[in-house]
Amino acid sequence: MEAMGRAAREAAHALRNSSAETRTAAIAAMARQIRAHAPEILAANALDLAGATGLVDRLRLDTGRIEAMARSIDEVALLPDPVGAEMDRWTRPNGLEIARVRTPIGVIGMIYESRPNVTADAAAICVRSGNAVILRSGSEALNSSTAIHEAVAAGLEEAGLPHDTVQLVPVEDREAVGLLLEGLSGTIDLIIPRGGKSLVERVGREARVATLGHLEGVCHTYVHSSADPDMAVSIVRNAKLRRVTICGATETLLIDRAAAPELLPQIARALDGCELRGDAESRLYAPMKAAQESDWTTEYLAPVLAVRTVAGLDSAIAHIERYGTGHTEAIIAADPLVAEDFLARVDSAIVIWNASTQFADGGEFGFGAEIGIATGKLHARGPVGPEQLTSFHYVVRGSGQIRP
Amino acid sequence: MEAMGRAAREAAHALRNSSAETRTAAIAAMARQIRAHAPEILAANALDLAGATGLVDRLRLDTGRIEAMARSIDEVALLPDPVGAEMDRWTRPNGLEIARVRTPIGVIGMIYESRPNVTADAAAICVRSGNAVILRSGSEALNSSTAIHEAVAAGLEEAGLPHDTVQLVPVEDREAVGLLLEGLSGTIDLIIPRGGKSLVERVGREARVATLGHLEGVCHTYVHSSADPDMAVSIVRNAKLRRVTICGATETLLIDRAAAPELLPQIARALDGCELRGDAESRLYAPMKAAQESDWTTEYLAPVLAVRTVAGLDSAIAHIERYGTGHTEAIIAADPLVAEDFLARVDSAIVIWNASTQFADGGEFGFGAEIGIATGKLHARGPVGPEQLTSFHYVVRGSGQIRP
Repeated sequence: MEAMGRAAREAAHALRNSSAETRTAAIAAMARQIRAHAPEILAANALDLAGATGLVDRLRLDTGRIEAMARSIDEVALLPDPVGAEMDRWTRPNGLEIARVRTPIGVIGMIYESRPNVTADAAAICVRSGNAVILRSGSEALNSSTAIHEAVAAGLEEAGLPHDTVQLVPVEDREAVGLLLEGLSGTIDLIIPRGGKSLVERVGREARVATLGHLEGVCHTYVHSSADPDMAVSIVRNAKLRRVTICGATETLLIDRAAAPELLPQIARALDGCELRGDAESRLYAPMKAAQESDWTTEYLAPVLAVRTVAGLDSAIAHIERYGTGHTEAIIAADPLVAEDFLARVDSAIVIWNASTQFADGGEFGFGAEIGIATGKLHARGPVGPEQLTSFHYVVRGSGQIRP
Repeated sequence: MEAMGRAAREAAHALRNSSAETRTAAIAAMARQIRAHAPEILAANALDLAGATGLVDRLRLDTGRIEAMARSIDEVALLPDPVGAEMDRWTRPNGLEIARVRTPIGVIGMIYESRPNVTADAAAICVRSGNAVILRSGSEALNSSTAIHEAVAAGLEEAGLPHDTVQLVPVEDREAVGLLLEGLSGTIDLIIPRGGKSLVERVGREARVATLGHLEGVCHTYVHSSADPDMAVSIVRNAKLRRVTICGATETLLIDRAAAPELLPQIARALDGCELRGDAESRLYAPMKAAQESDWTTEYLAPVLAVRTVAGLDSAIAHIERYGTGHTEAIIAADPLVAEDFLARVDSAIVIWNASTQFADGGEFGFGAEIGIATGKLHARGPVGPEQLTSFHYVVRGSGQIRP
């Protein structure tokens, strides 16, 4: 593992001095190699599936999914290269010209669970942003990830970038996670954990380097009394049910006391097939199970919705502040003053007015690709794409100035 | 200490919902109260001075320095309030309007050493950026910091902001630093350490929360063979001697072999009163002591300069990569291609062409105020002012959009 860290640092140095064209060529070659390696990747995936228990759908690859993986890498190849981009430039009264210029971060450690496509996405996004990466795939997807990593490495080699730009931890033991979290003797600049509660807690306990956590999304949709009823029904249905397993899916519905009698029955009908768990007041208006305290803090990732009737905006915000995870919250309201108050006061990575929480996604934001939604407040927040994986420095151009 | 963390979190919540006008009023009141409390602050400072050993100048306050401290807070009151500022806004093809809006970070922990003015500066900059702060002053300045903190608290109270917006750890024990580095049970969002090697090492070992390190500045000035000789002499003298105790002072001079015979004697004469420690080749051209390996890594903060003759640009960059701390490096060169190559390849927080490294300063950059120069690559890099102490979130405004 220590050797992987040193190799990554050397690769990061080479990558920092490579051209945007070379990085683009490498990413495009990675996509081609993934298509070419499809038979090996499918064979490896079959091994993983044979040993799998639960969450098999997230693990399964087929030719369609491999093509989708390659296409998403093709898209990263087309994204503008962020490295060297000028973010800002100004001139001081003494004539000094100061520019803020994007730079790579260096070496990123990525710890993730069962989706094998993360191996390909993370590799492409890290190369696009000029960073070397050490990937630690979940053991349940290790055969698939290894086969995908071989394709990625072949692509890097084709473009003349160091093989060690993208490394995959080969062992299955949990030891590797601990070593990554300690930073491999200072060689890792940033850890990106993607996973469930146990990984999150472990990161909080053990990480000695900066982390960009993609944590739980207990997302809320709040229906204000001024909401257009049809819009509210349509958005709540989409926010909960379009895809229940993504982090931007709504897990708790908050609804104003004034709107509940009319709207809750309509929403319940529209959420056909979804289990509702409501507080006592909500259960007056539609059939639902009784919600427990734990329902307010659960990321179901399933067709289950917690429902609570609230007195108004302040109660809704208080609920979100108490139980939310700072991911994404939406308000459905026709009253713009109420909506703007919600947007200003709710401190989540993404706050939405009159749209579905399922828009919480780098692609939907126009970032082209993402490797997660950061729920912390430092460095990057919200969808993490290539730009969010850069640092910056100041370039000062003078003509002999000395400081008085 | 745990109670301080909870109080800070509550204050941060109130601060987040306060207006820019209130924050401005509070900062202005802090400046007024510091002027009004001058006698108490001077008396407290006398106690600190009586117990002081070494670095007395950094610790000493007088009426002039107290007025300077108040004036620097007045300037922070005049700075634009960053909270709520829109950094970016775009519209998606589906009509969603997405804005990136600055938000406070929350609770900041600041650990610093003997300069009592940091107590006032940090308080003002944190309030400007909407953050609560817990200050841990060095014990050698604790009486002064306590008196300054009392003035700050009076200013907060005058403006109706919570007293706990700015808290000062009252105890002298080293325990407090450890508790802050552990994050006070999740109540601290960011630690800003300002100090010497031992604090830096402790932070690296013990910090469980994000840190924005203001670490050592082993800054380099590299004189390329194309440099204008007069400009090179003038800049090197300023970069080393204008003020030797600031982190942007040059500690190592690198000079091209082709320029050394002509320029080193001139530079040595211009650095009258400065001790030079050179490698064997440099010592051929001017009288200097022999440099040891440790000289390349020492932040002297004193009138001492390490000098090395190098073969050219590549050797200069290799030296900086090996020994530098990623703070600030300058090149003096008339050849723009060489200079741009240096600016692109040197990965320090600040890279400078044809100007003094002593410009590495938030005020000189136009940031209005700073509480340090961040030498890490995450969140903020370079001078840290109010804007750098903010986070951001995405505000999405729709008209009923659901995700297909």
